[in-house]
Amino acid sequence: MRLAAFLADGHRHVGLVDIGGWTITALDLPAAQAEFGVLPLITALAEGKSLPGAGGRTFDVKDIQLDAPLPRPRRNLWCVGRNYHAHAKELSASVFKDNDANPESWPIVFTKVPECVVGPHDAVHVPTGVSEQVDYEAELAVIIGKGGKNIRKADAAGHVFGYTIVNDVTARDVQMRHQQWDMGKSFDTFCPMGPWIVTADELDGTKTRVRCWVNGELRQEGATENMIFDIPMLIETISRGITLYPGDIIATGTPAGVGMGLKPPRYLRAGDVVRIEVDGLGTIENRFV
Amino acid sequence: MRLAAFLADGHRHVGLVDIGGWTITALDLPAAQAEFGVLPLITALAEGKSLPGAGGRTFDVKDIQLDAPLPRPRRNLWCVGRNYHAHAKELSASVFKDNDANPESWPIVFTKVPECVVGPHDAVHVPTGVSEQVDYEAELAVIIGKGGKNIRKADAAGHVFGYTIVNDVTARDVQMRHQQWDMGKSFDTFCPMGPWIVTADELDGTKTRVRCWVNGELRQEGATENMIFDIPMLIETISRGITLYPGDIIATGTPAGVGMGLKPPRYLRAGDVVRIEVDGLGTIENRFV
Repeated sequence: MRLAAFLADGHRHVGLVDIGGWTITALDLPAAQAEFGVLPLITALAEGKSLPGAGGRTFDVKDIQLDAPLPRPRRNLWCVGRNYHAHAKELSASVFKDNDANPESWPIVFTKVPECVVGPHDAVHVPTGVSEQVDYEAELAVIIGKGGKNIRKADAAGHVFGYTIVNDVTARDVQMRHQQWDMGKSFDTFCPMGPWIVTADELDGTKTRVRCWVNGELRQEGATENMIFDIPMLIETISRGITLYPGDIIATGTPAGVGMGLKPPRYLRAGDVVRIEVDGLGTIENRFV
Repeated sequence: MRLAAFLADGHRHVGLVDIGGWTITALDLPAAQAEFGVLPLITALAEGKSLPGAGGRTFDVKDIQLDAPLPRPRRNLWCVGRNYHAHAKELSASVFKDNDANPESWPIVFTKVPECVVGPHDAVHVPTGVSEQVDYEAELAVIIGKGGKNIRKADAAGHVFGYTIVNDVTARDVQMRHQQWDMGKSFDTFCPMGPWIVTADELDGTKTRVRCWVNGELRQEGATENMIFDIPMLIETISRGITLYPGDIIATGTPAGVGMGLKPPRYLRAGDVVRIEVDGLGTIENRFV
């Protein structure tokens, strides 16, 4: 199942996308709930309720404007740093320089504010005067379905609702000067998300290719089987003593090839277009302005 | 004005506390809004609306159960690390060891999840099996009234709605092993808050004494004028490129005297009682279980 939030006819809708990604059929959801995209459906399913009927109009995807499937997450997104071996290596002298010598000991977990989420084709604003080092990070994001605390690795799959794509846009200079990363990750519009959520029965997030292009040039190409901490391990780790809720988002880290890792580094400027593709999920493409 | 959230007659209310802190008069607020404590009032005032009338019953504070004034913040709380000189010094060999040699360059800003907020007299659960190093941090918290982005220091006071107390409870071992601090700060029940919000017209948060006792023993005593980064500077810094919203919470950092800074360190155990007093605000007191 593919669930999307979108704008059409001047209204916000949530709908089911067909397997080819060509059409989208609106679900019968009150407007106040549709504001939160797929979140009310995830919550309802976690409570054992069923999905509303797909009684609305069917639109061509090309005729509507896709929004982030979770345009207003219930709290900050969980994000994982340094989770691909090659990426840990490329930044070992910069952003990870003060980190544990053994990258395999514990994951690095930080957050992004919910209000920085934007849609899969929305503009990302370069915070002029605040950062000169805006960078992309293509990531597979896990959406939690059934909540819980102290979830064991072996049970983690039962808590995954589905997957989506995020660009964990980062202001490297701000990330480093504040030492804790949340601010450098949380500028307005710094979290493009989409194009929709693919539920866990249709996608195996553990063996998925993640790619990123900047102005058509391939910069990142990684496979989620090369994660240092796999998805069940991330869920076990984050839920130790901390309750996870339906709709929680865990961005699982980025492969090698970020702008900061290039020699010399190449940061994003107004006019650049970043395209991220994750096999089985689709594409998001955002212009930086 | 002192605004509190509380439970009485089996219902959740929001009310006005008298100047002595003895009685509380319920405001006319729909139940669905009262779930969020003072937050809907802060939002309404920021939109230029007026407060609802104080048409409800008047209770003796001793007869009701105080809740956190913001029991469900709209997103993670902003928290500031290393913001008193003496505290920076006491932890310079441990939690701040990898940080910038010059503590005055930029503040350290991290977050706590909104769901870890509990009331001013609620139990705090020691996450047995996850952390052996649970510590207290007495803090003055600023509540944002009017939101905004790129707020200048000189204008910051106009964005402060009021103040409350938080205990930024911290699992030191988890804080350090994950390198980014959000997880070690976010265990369920790790953010006692209260007893109420005192509005900015009645309290000058810039010259306020913060004290903390563990089982009756004075451990922390600091004055907010000894902050490394004062409140206007924190608001200017966090709002650079990141929109602040009405009801956002900024916990401004803790004075010297945390358990980790003692020689040898002394961590909290089940049965310990932590009491925090901030002049002009009142007291919160929580038993660890």
